[in-house]
Amino acid sequence: MATNLVTGNVVIGQSGGPTAVINQSLVGVVEGVRFGLQAAGHVKKVLGMRHGVRGLTKGEFLDLTDTHQDVLDRLANTPSAGLGSTRDKPDKAYCERILDACRKHDVRYFFYIGGNDSSDTCRIVREMAVASGYDMRCFHVPKTVDNDLRENDHTPGFPSAARFVAMACMADFLDNISLPGIKINVIMGRHAGFLTAASALARRYDRNLNPNVAAESTDGPQLIYLPEVPFDVDRFLADVDSVYSKKGRCHIAVSEGIQDKDGVAIGARLIKGGQTDSHGNVQLSGSGALGDLLADFVKEKLTPAGGKPPRVRADTFGYIQRCWPDSSIIDRIEARRSGRFAGTLAMQGWLDGSVAIKRPGTGSALWMGSDNGVPYISEYARVELSAVAAKTRHMPEEFMLGHNNVSKQFLEYCLPLVGDLPGFERL
Amino acid sequence: MATNLVTGNVVIGQSGGPTAVINQSLVGVVEGVRFGLQAAGHVKKVLGMRHGVRGLTKGEFLDLTDTHQDVLDRLANTPSAGLGSTRDKPDKAYCERILDACRKHDVRYFFYIGGNDSSDTCRIVREMAVASGYDMRCFHVPKTVDNDLRENDHTPGFPSAARFVAMACMADFLDNISLPGIKINVIMGRHAGFLTAASALARRYDRNLNPNVAAESTDGPQLIYLPEVPFDVDRFLADVDSVYSKKGRCHIAVSEGIQDKDGVAIGARLIKGGQTDSHGNVQLSGSGALGDLLADFVKEKLTPAGGKPPRVRADTFGYIQRCWPDSSIIDRIEARRSGRFAGTLAMQGWLDGSVAIKRPGTGSALWMGSDNGVPYISEYARVELSAVAAKTRHMPEEFMLGHNNVSKQFLEYCLPLVGDLPGFERL
Repeated sequence: MATNLVTGNVVIGQSGGPTAVINQSLVGVVEGVRFGLQAAGHVKKVLGMRHGVRGLTKGEFLDLTDTHQDVLDRLANTPSAGLGSTRDKPDKAYCERILDACRKHDVRYFFYIGGNDSSDTCRIVREMAVASGYDMRCFHVPKTVDNDLRENDHTPGFPSAARFVAMACMADFLDNISLPGIKINVIMGRHAGFLTAASALARRYDRNLNPNVAAESTDGPQLIYLPEVPFDVDRFLADVDSVYSKKGRCHIAVSEGIQDKDGVAIGARLIKGGQTDSHGNVQLSGSGALGDLLADFVKEKLTPAGGKPPRVRADTFGYIQRCWPDSSIIDRIEARRSGRFAGTLAMQGWLDGSVAIKRPGTGSALWMGSDNGVPYISEYARVELSAVAAKTRHMPEEFMLGHNNVSKQFLEYCLPLVGDLPGFERL
Repeated sequence: MATNLVTGNVVIGQSGGPTAVINQSLVGVVEGVRFGLQAAGHVKKVLGMRHGVRGLTKGEFLDLTDTHQDVLDRLANTPSAGLGSTRDKPDKAYCERILDACRKHDVRYFFYIGGNDSSDTCRIVREMAVASGYDMRCFHVPKTVDNDLRENDHTPGFPSAARFVAMACMADFLDNISLPGIKINVIMGRHAGFLTAASALARRYDRNLNPNVAAESTDGPQLIYLPEVPFDVDRFLADVDSVYSKKGRCHIAVSEGIQDKDGVAIGARLIKGGQTDSHGNVQLSGSGALGDLLADFVKEKLTPAGGKPPRVRADTFGYIQRCWPDSSIIDRIEARRSGRFAGTLAMQGWLDGSVAIKRPGTGSALWMGSDNGVPYISEYARVELSAVAAKTRHMPEEFMLGHNNVSKQFLEYCLPLVGDLPGFERL
């Protein structure tokens, strides 16, 4: 057991877009601290930051020191960020204020649940604390539906959002074959295509659909467009035309973050009056503009001269995909354990670190078969904050197939994460 | 037992927008026929129409006579219309072709699952059959997420869609309080506000929210706009301003079918390049245009002079709300039984009719308490086709409260239908 432990207050915060399981991680940290540092007498109070570092700097806390386990269990199963979240991305001056607030409130353990911006906040605050000789330990707990954190096999929040996308596309594909037409579904993911790729799990008979025979397949979505592959409108229209002219219908999954060959987001270019968030990003979610625009392109292109336009519809899955209350069971467990693991790192005397989820190979002693028949187990590891901070992971080459599909490797990667999917019957 | 039974083929079709439980009704009819007319020797074949009357007129059928019960059970739990659906709304000439096809294929029992247009098709075809002396019995089985059929307490498909809307609004409200802003959710319902009204079920603490104190409530959505109440943009903006200025956030449910005081749909007026369906209706679903437009109005109105616009987001729930695979258990049971009841009506010797779901009062011998503590039981009745055909039911006065809310009566009406909703914890 570590002997260098400091005694003081613990703060825990949640940051960025909420997910279906970010409260699992919050409760995991509370439990990890409670059964570790707190039991060992190193904790005065466990304080939840209201709306992340924004609340911290204002001294707005919720006292979680003695919160009953029953409340914690209900909270863990509640989607979205129970403490409130924030989109603030602290610069150096902001981080100074964070550190001042921590000093003022005798904070010695700082836990922050979020994406790569949150791990960057942890990193900066920790470096400032070290430089000023203040002993405060900083830990980052991973969270993002985009699944774009480095060092992680996948990130809590992604499996549940992927489950939603798979379920939505399964049901919507059946809708599409029932009333045939061209259907475009726009899915979250600013830079990384993992969540859009999960639409391929909706294919029940032919998940590993060959893009060269998409028009022959009985399964959908037939076309999948990721931000990692430069989006060419003419090629897109040719793809849709090819499937539609053969099948009389076409089911399409498009990432909100699709970009042209110069890296300019198609959506951002076109959304009139679009808002930018505090990170300087143009608003992609919370608008149907990209889907509607692509639908207009398709109608224009595929309407025969003097004829009737095809039935084209676009839906944007929107915010419900990140908070849908039917989370993946794997995700629930992993989000909770990630939080607990952060508490354990602190108890072990680590001074900082980011929790990462790793997937050992089938040769591992931890290997076990999953319900889907795909081998799956996960482990938790400490990685350096700087290895995760402010970096973005993309879909690896081997997860993509052609310019409009995903590979078998991706399906084997993703399928165990989402939990059991319903089995449907087609006549 | 009726003695006037005719012997021949049975056809079953599905029509209109698919739902999560329309296959339950299909299987219910197959079972009702199988255990009734078929067992009694009055059925040669049970034929499913491919894409409703469109397939029927082309002689496109799926033979369901001997479909295994296991397949039927899986099919029943599969969302969307397993036989394929159609938007065709037959006129007299089309109905002649339907009758011709029925004669040609020796159809003696005609079952059609759908909304008020489908019951009208049943009515016309039946009248033509009578006029021409052809003995064919026509039965309509109710289906519509809009819940707008006359004579019915509610309609199969609505409870599951209402469940989706309630779950989505519960989760999205938590998202909204986590990252505060103004959030507009656009919900299906062209003429009837039942589905949008179901958003009120998302309120966990204060379901019967008083519109006069919406800005004080801890619960959302705080504002609900139905097609039954003339929509006034200025009043809407004043409502939003009032809630937002007090709480710093606002959660809003809007029906896609909101209309101005002259009965003109706000969405239809504004959607550029909007498509009309074969009923002459302007396309409202499958586009984010209405939500985006309202969001633009709000941004414009609520941006302080020279200041930063508020965070405004709009999501349109889209097609997944009608086919989401987590259906309401009540809906599953009732959709199945509605189908079976139609088979029973035929076996009893009725010549035509529409199945209606009734809810007896608490004084009924059938009364039982529901899981939600709200008394609930349903019964099935035969009503005349003409009582349902081509008519629309709207939210009754007593279900509405002010111009932007629903009443306690509506909540008591709707809550038992959707099944158990998850319990969430708020700190």
